[in-house]
Amino acid sequence: MQIVVLRIGHRPERDKRITTHVGLVARAFGAKEMLLTGRDPSIEESIGDVAERWGGGFKLRSDVAWRDEARRWKDLGGKLVHLTMYGSNLPSVIDEIRGCDKIMIAVGAEKVPAEMYDLADWNVAVGNQPHSEVAALALFMDRLLEGKELEIDFGEGLKIIPTPRGKTVIDRPARGEQSSEPCSEEKGKET
Amino acid sequence: MQIVVLRIGHRPERDKRITTHVGLVARAFGAKEMLLTGRDPSIEESIGDVAERWGGGFKLRSDVAWRDEARRWKDLGGKLVHLTMYGSNLPSVIDEIRGCDKIMIAVGAEKVPAEMYDLADWNVAVGNQPHSEVAALALFMDRLLEGKELEIDFGEGLKIIPTPRGKTVIDRPARGEQSSEPCSEEKGKET
Repeated sequence: MQIVVLRIGHRPERDKRITTHVGLVARAFGAKEMLLTGRDPSIEESIGDVAERWGGGFKLRSDVAWRDEARRWKDLGGKLVHLTMYGSNLPSVIDEIRGCDKIMIAVGAEKVPAEMYDLADWNVAVGNQPHSEVAALALFMDRLLEGKELEIDFGEGLKIIPTPRGKTVIDRPARGEQSSEPCSEEKGKET
Repeated sequence: MQIVVLRIGHRPERDKRITTHVGLVARAFGAKEMLLTGRDPSIEESIGDVAERWGGGFKLRSDVAWRDEARRWKDLGGKLVHLTMYGSNLPSVIDEIRGCDKIMIAVGAEKVPAEMYDLADWNVAVGNQPHSEVAALALFMDRLLEGKELEIDFGEGLKIIPTPRGKTVIDRPARGEQSSEPCSEEKGKET
């Protein structure tokens, strides 16, 4: 399944960290790309840094025209899911959505244009209380991928060995590079 | 099950929106309280505003001493779960955690003190890639509550009627107030 995330309405002065978290969830859970309306160098840097150190081929594409991207996606046979607390409840539509090959997930920051509600194949509510587009994206992708997103291994870059106490991290070479020391301890928190 | 969220390491200049989203997820998914190290009037205002309009008894308690709160919680028979990408994988421990009556969920912003890893009954990883404490909290609570958190109705305040297109919101009176008009349309996006 091919998944891309479309982040619309990003306001650099206000949404920097939230949009970064949207992008990091998208990458960590297996989306191939985040499309962003507007451009924010700090987000490009944060996400680029994580992608470089932790592996995978995740891309951030800035300054997109969201209507054009959404329409092109649909013209090419993809489906568009818009996450909004006003939409159909997640459990009632997820089985149907899971049957699709190509899914664009739209998550809004500020007020989302009415046109998005019409353009979307599904408007999906992750609960009916206000909370967070980061949480909504994570839960939607979790239900979509049935928990498999928590087992993703990009096959390169830093790798955590789960442990009940402390931190164990293996530093693997990027694809095509020579192997470095197999084990190291990483002290900092990564996000 | 009684759930509280402990947010540590909040930096007002950097974490304002992320900590707000942590609090909104905590409330929306049924935690009774968020404890915050430090104080941030903008977070108090954002979360207070949502709680007032959307109902429920969620509280934000600021300026807590996290070690004291965590120890007191454990002394009173509660369990402490620390969400960290370095911990035990969520699926391998969630059944055991689900057996507890009282759970404090700790989510860090900046680097978390080593003491937290030792004090926690479980250090739990929601995937082993860097992403977001908002996403980690949402997914942890979802697995803990087995999806029931998406059905929460606080019995007062604004209520969304899920709909495939557009927005339908009912405005209900707070408990103890006279009923107002049963139906209205809310245009703005709420988070």
